[in-house]
Amino acid sequence: MSVLFEKVAVLGLGLIGSSLCHAMRKEGLARHIVGYAKSAETRATALEIGLVDAVYETAADAVVDADLIILCAPIGACGPLAAAIKPNLKRGATVTDVGSVKGAIVRDCGPHIPEGVHFIPGHPIAGTEQSGPRSGFAELFHNRWCILTPVAGSDSAAVAKLEQFWKACGSNVELMDAGHHDLVLAITSHLPHLIAYTTVATAADLENVTDSEVIKYSASGFRDFTRIAASDPTMWRDVFLNNKDAVLEMLGRFSEELSVLQRAVRWGDGETLFNLFTRAREARRNIIAAGQDTAAPDFGRAIKKD
Amino acid sequence: MSVLFEKVAVLGLGLIGSSLCHAMRKEGLARHIVGYAKSAETRATALEIGLVDAVYETAADAVVDADLIILCAPIGACGPLAAAIKPNLKRGATVTDVGSVKGAIVRDCGPHIPEGVHFIPGHPIAGTEQSGPRSGFAELFHNRWCILTPVAGSDSAAVAKLEQFWKACGSNVELMDAGHHDLVLAITSHLPHLIAYTTVATAADLENVTDSEVIKYSASGFRDFTRIAASDPTMWRDVFLNNKDAVLEMLGRFSEELSVLQRAVRWGDGETLFNLFTRAREARRNIIAAGQDTAAPDFGRAIKKD
Repeated sequence: MSVLFEKVAVLGLGLIGSSLCHAMRKEGLARHIVGYAKSAETRATALEIGLVDAVYETAADAVVDADLIILCAPIGACGPLAAAIKPNLKRGATVTDVGSVKGAIVRDCGPHIPEGVHFIPGHPIAGTEQSGPRSGFAELFHNRWCILTPVAGSDSAAVAKLEQFWKACGSNVELMDAGHHDLVLAITSHLPHLIAYTTVATAADLENVTDSEVIKYSASGFRDFTRIAASDPTMWRDVFLNNKDAVLEMLGRFSEELSVLQRAVRWGDGETLFNLFTRAREARRNIIAAGQDTAAPDFGRAIKKD
Repeated sequence: MSVLFEKVAVLGLGLIGSSLCHAMRKEGLARHIVGYAKSAETRATALEIGLVDAVYETAADAVVDADLIILCAPIGACGPLAAAIKPNLKRGATVTDVGSVKGAIVRDCGPHIPEGVHFIPGHPIAGTEQSGPRSGFAELFHNRWCILTPVAGSDSAAVAKLEQFWKACGSNVELMDAGHHDLVLAITSHLPHLIAYTTVATAADLENVTDSEVIKYSASGFRDFTRIAASDPTMWRDVFLNNKDAVLEMLGRFSEELSVLQRAVRWGDGETLFNLFTRAREARRNIIAAGQDTAAPDFGRAIKKD
C-alpha cells in the first residue's frame, strides 16, 4: 500500500487505537504516527513497544499538523477531546472516531469541529474482550465491517479517502446514517453485552449455587457469556449512557421474547421451544456463511491434547 | 489404560455418544463397543467410520451381555429406552446416562432398572454446538467435569468404577445429589441457552434492522450468542421440559437483575453500570484460572492473516 496520510494522530491508545497503529505501520498508510493517552503508563508503553513515533501529554499537542485525527476514547471522553483539539486542527484535516454510538458523537463532537475540517464519524465492528495498549494487533480489522456515518455536507473526497484507509486496514466499509447505526448496534452489540452482564450478575448472586460451582461447570454454556462481559467497563458504561433509547427499545423486545419462552417452559409447550430452537440454528449458519465467525466447533477453542 | 468393561453399549450416537466411542477406543477402555441409534443413517455412519464394533436396530438387542450401558439420547427418550432394555440387562451391569437433567432421569429411568443392576446417572459437562455421529472426538471430555448423581443405595464399587471410566476419558469427576445438579446446571447451562435463544429470536423479529445487517455486524457481540443457540433443538427442548422448576427460578432472578440494569440505563446511572461491569470481568478471570476457558482473545478464534 502507499501512504494515505502524512501525519496521523491517534487519540487514545487502547485496543482499537493500538491496533490501528499496528495496521497503519504494517500497511505503510502514514508517514508519521503520533499518539495521545491520558495515562502516563500508557504513553510510556506506546513508546516502548513502538506503537507511535511520538506521544504527547495533551491531545491538543498531538494533533498539530495532523492530516487524520482518530478519536479512540470511550464515548464520554470524545466531546471533551474534540473541544481540546479544536484550536490546533489543520484546515483540510479529517477528524474521525471509532465509537460504538454515533448519534452521541455527532452531538458531542460536531460543535467543536471548525469550518474547513472534515468530520466523519466511524465505527469498526471489531474487537476483543481485552484492553490497553498491549492488546492491539494489526489483523483486528481484517474481514470485519467498518461503518462510516458522514454528516450532512461531508466532503465526498474526504469520505472516499477515509474509506480507502479502512479498506487498507483490511475492513469492508459501509456508509450509514448515524441513527440507523445506533439501532443496528443496539441489537448486534449493546443488547448482547447487557444480557451477558446480567447473566454473570445473576450467577454471582445465588445463595444455593456457589461461585466455584458456576466456574467449574461453566463449560456447559455460561463461559460463552463471560467473554463479552469481560470487556472494558468504562467503554461500556459510556455506550449504555449514550444509546439509551435504542437499547431500551431492544430490551423491551427481548423481554417480550423471553416471556414467550418462559411461558412455553412453564406450560411444557415443547413445540414452541423446538420451533424456536430450530430457527436459531439458521442464524449461526448465516453468520458463518458471511465469514463473520468460525465454523470450527466451540469457536475453535484449542482442544487440549495429551 | 487397561480394559475397564468387557462390553459397552452406547445407546444414541450423537455428539456425546460418538465422542465416548472415540475416547474408549483411544484409551482402550472396552473390549467390545456396540451401539444403537434410532436412525438407519446414523447406524450406517457409525459402522462406516468405525465408532462401534456392531450396531443394532433396537436398544434391547444392543444391551445383551453388556457390562456398561450408556444412554446418550435426549432426556425425553431415556425413559422409553430404559423400559425397552429392561428385559435384557445383565445382573451386575451398570446403567448410566449423559443427560443435562438428572432428576428427570431418576424419575423416568429408575423404575425400569431391575434389582441387581447398578443405576448411576451421570452428566459430562462438555459439548460443542455440533451434533450427529460425525461430530464426536476423543478429547471432548479432557479437563472437563463429569458429575455423577448416585441414587440411594448405589453400589459404591460400581460408582468408583464409573468414576474411573470418566477419569480415563480425561474428565474430573464430582459426586452430587441429583436435585443440586439440576439447580447448578440451570444457571451454568440452561439459563444461558434460553437467553441465547431469546436474543437470536429478538434479532430475527425486528422490522427496522434487517437480518443481513444483524449477520454483517454480528462480530460486535451477537455472534457469541449464536454458538450455543445452534445446539441440537430436540435435546434442548427436552432439557427445558424436564428442568422446569429450576429454570423458572433462574429466569425469575435473571429478570430481576435485568430490571436493575434497565433502570440504570433509563436513568443514566453510570456508577451502577460501571460497578457491575467491573465485577463481571472477575468471573471470566476465575473461569480462565480454573482451566475452563482459553485466555486467548476472542476465544482464540483464528485471526485471518493475509
